[in-house]
Amino acid sequence: MSKNIFYAQSGGVTAVINATACGVIETARKSRKIGKVFAGKNGILGALREELIDTSVESNKAIAALRHTPSGAFGSCRYKLKSLEENEAEYHRLVEVFKAHDIGYFFYNGGGDSQDTANKVSQLSLGMGYPITCIGIPKTVDNDLPITDNCPGFGSVAKYVAVSTMEAGLDVASMAESSTKVFVLEVMGRHAGWIAAAGGLAKSSAGAPPHVILFPEVAFDKAKFLAKVKDSVNKYGFCVVVASEGAQYADGTFLADAGAKDAFGHTQLGGVAPTLVDMIKAEHGYKCHWSVADYLQRAARHIASGTDVEQAYAVGAAAVEFALAGKNAVMPVIKRRSTKKYSWEIDEAPLSKVANVEKMMPKSFITKDGFGITNKARDYLSPLIQGEDYPPYRDGLPQYVQLQKKLVKKKLRPFNPS
Amino acid sequence: MSKNIFYAQSGGVTAVINATACGVIETARKSRKIGKVFAGKNGILGALREELIDTSVESNKAIAALRHTPSGAFGSCRYKLKSLEENEAEYHRLVEVFKAHDIGYFFYNGGGDSQDTANKVSQLSLGMGYPITCIGIPKTVDNDLPITDNCPGFGSVAKYVAVSTMEAGLDVASMAESSTKVFVLEVMGRHAGWIAAAGGLAKSSAGAPPHVILFPEVAFDKAKFLAKVKDSVNKYGFCVVVASEGAQYADGTFLADAGAKDAFGHTQLGGVAPTLVDMIKAEHGYKCHWSVADYLQRAARHIASGTDVEQAYAVGAAAVEFALAGKNAVMPVIKRRSTKKYSWEIDEAPLSKVANVEKMMPKSFITKDGFGITNKARDYLSPLIQGEDYPPYRDGLPQYVQLQKKLVKKKLRPFNPS
Repeated sequence: MSKNIFYAQSGGVTAVINATACGVIETARKSRKIGKVFAGKNGILGALREELIDTSVESNKAIAALRHTPSGAFGSCRYKLKSLEENEAEYHRLVEVFKAHDIGYFFYNGGGDSQDTANKVSQLSLGMGYPITCIGIPKTVDNDLPITDNCPGFGSVAKYVAVSTMEAGLDVASMAESSTKVFVLEVMGRHAGWIAAAGGLAKSSAGAPPHVILFPEVAFDKAKFLAKVKDSVNKYGFCVVVASEGAQYADGTFLADAGAKDAFGHTQLGGVAPTLVDMIKAEHGYKCHWSVADYLQRAARHIASGTDVEQAYAVGAAAVEFALAGKNAVMPVIKRRSTKKYSWEIDEAPLSKVANVEKMMPKSFITKDGFGITNKARDYLSPLIQGEDYPPYRDGLPQYVQLQKKLVKKKLRPFNPS
Repeated sequence: MSKNIFYAQSGGVTAVINATACGVIETARKSRKIGKVFAGKNGILGALREELIDTSVESNKAIAALRHTPSGAFGSCRYKLKSLEENEAEYHRLVEVFKAHDIGYFFYNGGGDSQDTANKVSQLSLGMGYPITCIGIPKTVDNDLPITDNCPGFGSVAKYVAVSTMEAGLDVASMAESSTKVFVLEVMGRHAGWIAAAGGLAKSSAGAPPHVILFPEVAFDKAKFLAKVKDSVNKYGFCVVVASEGAQYADGTFLADAGAKDAFGHTQLGGVAPTLVDMIKAEHGYKCHWSVADYLQRAARHIASGTDVEQAYAVGAAAVEFALAGKNAVMPVIKRRSTKKYSWEIDEAPLSKVANVEKMMPKSFITKDGFGITNKARDYLSPLIQGEDYPPYRDGLPQYVQLQKKLVKKKLRPFNPS
């Protein structure tokens, strides 16, 4: 009998994670060897609580519309399973739920933490005599997974940030003589400056914005930064800064530490832009404006990268194909065939090599002064934002789909995740 | 001999003010009765300093590309001419420059302040024996000009805010169970809540985001606001807030007063979103995220409203037609013919009735509890965001035009604006 798939979305959602779900479900629907696709309500919590969304009741049209709908259609969560030693019960519960619902495949769509979980479930289920085929599917706007050339979700944020930087740059340029001289755009990227780097794609000539990029990888030097801003205003009449939320001093202190920590123990950040603006006003007295893109950047399906949408779909489809081919504890990755005339293909990576490895930006991507991106970075980033893939509109608004999210009948006793 | 046009962009730029410039220049190029179109470098300052950009050297292709290029292609400024009594010299200088360059038409593309200036120049030039035909052209993202049904520039910001609210709302909804419960989006609108109201268009059903809108027109009541946020989290699991930068307490104190004032004496605002988030965290302890759209919203040509682009072009074209028809001291306005199947036409209004009048949102547009928009507001707003008008892209980025901006040779002595 055909086994079912359990698919879960994990961590921060993106503009294209539902395109991956679409790739999984459409590909599974075409195969006679696969039963149903169940999706976890709110990610892995849905498995622990036995809250499984039955995607088979959704129309083909609704599933197709996932391709152009941002956010996590089934709900996501930042819940991280503890280590096997600390909470083996949770892993047992997962396998128990999978067994009860005839689930033979676990597809975990997330970042490094999720790939680690998928890998563990694969090992444990084998030991429990109910082997689950575990496929990790890459997703993260942070672009920090190893092996894969890039992560689905990143290209669309990159496009949003590049386009926004270009547009705001034109705005500031046209008013700078008598009004705002400095504009600071704060973007995501906790430990890696990939997203901030994408702002650099807006730079069309030497004097064009952005004039300063702040990366988490480069220790923030206040005096050097303020001098650079002044220099830009003097030379070009204005200064556009793209600042990563993860910008930090040499000792690792974030410029703006909001204090709160999420379930993974990561510090919740926000407020770099106003912090920088305060510094600039105090030192130079320039009129400044600032923007914090926050969720707008990762939800902006309206300006998604066509490349990103295609790749997000492709890794979802590949997960099903891998499973059908008997692969286990692997993740489909994007392999760049060529940069000049950009082409890519799907390859595979063992989860053990993906889990908990954070890919930093190469030093060669950052200019010597620490405030810009090199041509090498441009060559890498540029293809990822190419292509437009607009959602359909009605009455001026995107037609994003809302699924029915019908839950499968429970068969087991309740379980409370810790 | 055919007189030249002087065209100037004034105040905060928009995603479509260049579409108006395109309308002016393309229409003028078709007429044999008009000489050249000179544009003020940095707006009216360009006239005072005799820095006139000769648009006749720009190709038809470059001028056509203005239609899809955001910001002010010739530069704008927040320079406001003083009253005639305080600085008559400036008005004389304007007329002197116009005379020297055979300018018979003054087109001033801006908000209420600019229409006031255009009106004064019209009167004064008559008294000086060199009558200038003065046409005001409406532009303001704030949508606060009287008589015209709406202001070019507003529809595109409205679309940006509605789309962004919808997208961020989906994002928050999909993570709320275990992560962020409240998201606050800060938008522009100093004294009128038109832009914040546009966020309400994202609301597709009773429980859908946004759950709270804060208007400058409704006195901020902290206890009531916090109760509303809590109620929304309890009922729907999350709460999306769209807050106008002009949100204020009953005594007129802005929630976040950045302190600085611009050249018009207006207080420079920013920081409502983090202020609200601090309140919510302190009272309810919810995990919150916030975004400040700032310039991104008014520069976002990539998601401009098709209706707005058409109207922005039309008021530019109409300015030329009005001038050719011998009209003076008037402004083309947008007249709504019908809402149900939206249609509009260009009408005219005397500058004397436009100048310095601020159109507030009708009370009937705000729900009784002060936190939402009524169906009447939706009927008014919805047509303004309809239609998509995407710029062309290359390598993933919009192809915005940069003009040559060649200056006309000076003929007069220097003049320093005060």
